[in-house]
Amino acid sequence: MEILQSAAALQAQTEKWRRDGQRIGLVPTMGALHDGHLRLVQAAAAENDVVVVSIFVNPTQFNNPDDFRLYPRLPEADAALLEPAGCTALFLPSVEEMYPQPSKLRFDFGSLEQVMEGAHRPGHFNGVATVVSKLFHLSRPHQAYFGQKDLQQVAIIRQLVADLSFDLELITFPTVREADGLAMSSRNRRLSADARQIAPQLYAALLLGQKLVMQKQLVAAIKDKVHSLLTADKAIQVEYFEIVDTQTLQPIEILVPRQEVALCIAAWLADVRLIDNLLFEVK
Amino acid sequence: MEILQSAAALQAQTEKWRRDGQRIGLVPTMGALHDGHLRLVQAAAAENDVVVVSIFVNPTQFNNPDDFRLYPRLPEADAALLEPAGCTALFLPSVEEMYPQPSKLRFDFGSLEQVMEGAHRPGHFNGVATVVSKLFHLSRPHQAYFGQKDLQQVAIIRQLVADLSFDLELITFPTVREADGLAMSSRNRRLSADARQIAPQLYAALLLGQKLVMQKQLVAAIKDKVHSLLTADKAIQVEYFEIVDTQTLQPIEILVPRQEVALCIAAWLADVRLIDNLLFEVK
Repeated sequence: MEILQSAAALQAQTEKWRRDGQRIGLVPTMGALHDGHLRLVQAAAAENDVVVVSIFVNPTQFNNPDDFRLYPRLPEADAALLEPAGCTALFLPSVEEMYPQPSKLRFDFGSLEQVMEGAHRPGHFNGVATVVSKLFHLSRPHQAYFGQKDLQQVAIIRQLVADLSFDLELITFPTVREADGLAMSSRNRRLSADARQIAPQLYAALLLGQKLVMQKQLVAAIKDKVHSLLTADKAIQVEYFEIVDTQTLQPIEILVPRQEVALCIAAWLADVRLIDNLLFEVK
Repeated sequence: MEILQSAAALQAQTEKWRRDGQRIGLVPTMGALHDGHLRLVQAAAAENDVVVVSIFVNPTQFNNPDDFRLYPRLPEADAALLEPAGCTALFLPSVEEMYPQPSKLRFDFGSLEQVMEGAHRPGHFNGVATVVSKLFHLSRPHQAYFGQKDLQQVAIIRQLVADLSFDLELITFPTVREADGLAMSSRNRRLSADARQIAPQLYAALLLGQKLVMQKQLVAAIKDKVHSLLTADKAIQVEYFEIVDTQTLQPIEILVPRQEVALCIAAWLADVRLIDNLLFEVK
């Protein structure tokens, strides 16, 4: 596995691969890798000739400076995990390498970003779309892999790819969970022992929400009951719990049979913010 | 010369060219070609192995429906001009081909688009950036060619390329003029005989402005005199005349020696809107 730190080196490498007819898979990450990331890398390796994994804690997508400062950074441990998973080239750029000049361009995705993460993290999806566009242009992937845990991010990137006619295929994989149901996340490393014990409540809340949806309860009642479950534990501060259409991400007021819905949650456990979601079809 | 009408056909062709190590030049146009366009095509042919010329009257960059409806469309005449100029592939897509689904994504370039064309044509540069991004992704150019007559467009596209790390080089060429000084433009075809006779006044106004700048007159006085020249003819309705920094495009209040400035003008002659500009260094 090669480690590349400059954009020019990555561009030169991927240009050569393209010319040689190699299929390129890209897995963009912010590092502190877990099994969710590694499954993406393994899938990319199975379906492509070469795999680029980027590790870049992108400052422009953080609205909270503490979250950026405290985001786990473990490049050596990550590198050790990536080679056996099938990574061909690890791209580890500096902030200056990715942003040699300040960006003037800003993206707006309209209704897609006026809910949930977009509403609670101003500027977040502009930063995501900017860095993902850069990574696409540096890596020239045939396929790019993203985890479904960041459901709204996937919707934004799908829109970006369609609206700008990027010539690549997006591949998403389901959320990987710990044995107790907690969605794997790099931010889980920042949880205290106490918070870690409580954290599976987020998934329990999603499962409760799913059960109530299947029982055809009213949306308002479902939200009340899910909030009650979560706020029973004072260590959890719910930021939002939404029932949304999986395509438009707009909140659903009235559930309809055969509708594809996503239950989405964001909550703070002390100073750590976690998100999770569950996708299913209404019966 | 091959004529391609589908995005998929162009992508397949440019993918093959890239794999074969061919250098690709792209000249994006809206058709109704004149010598300004043809010089771009000739330059692209001289510096690349293959040349893609796109002709697409892009609806998303028109804020005025009449301007879109009346924009000259002459695909057969254009095609006859392109082959001898060195065009390898003419891309002639339909609106549905370029926009199979409505765009949700919108670009904002901040201060770069809050002046001149951006201020007077709301949404114009969002449409430009969107279609140019698409054309870059379909054509995979090593070099893309633009005329300096659309000065603000060039600045926007330069920012787009830098901020999203597009792997290509922008090449700009000076404005080509008729013998009487009128900047070549596809919209000139829409001028009445009377308006065509008056139209060179725009360039005369720019030359007067340049002379006054060189005489170190005050910006306000220069603007007054240029406006007076233009409004002497009632057939001309000035939309703006600005003295701006060539990089930031922000209006200049006080001229400084060695400063790179652009004089920019937009004016209506009856129902036809023309723009022009002049770049030079303050002595």
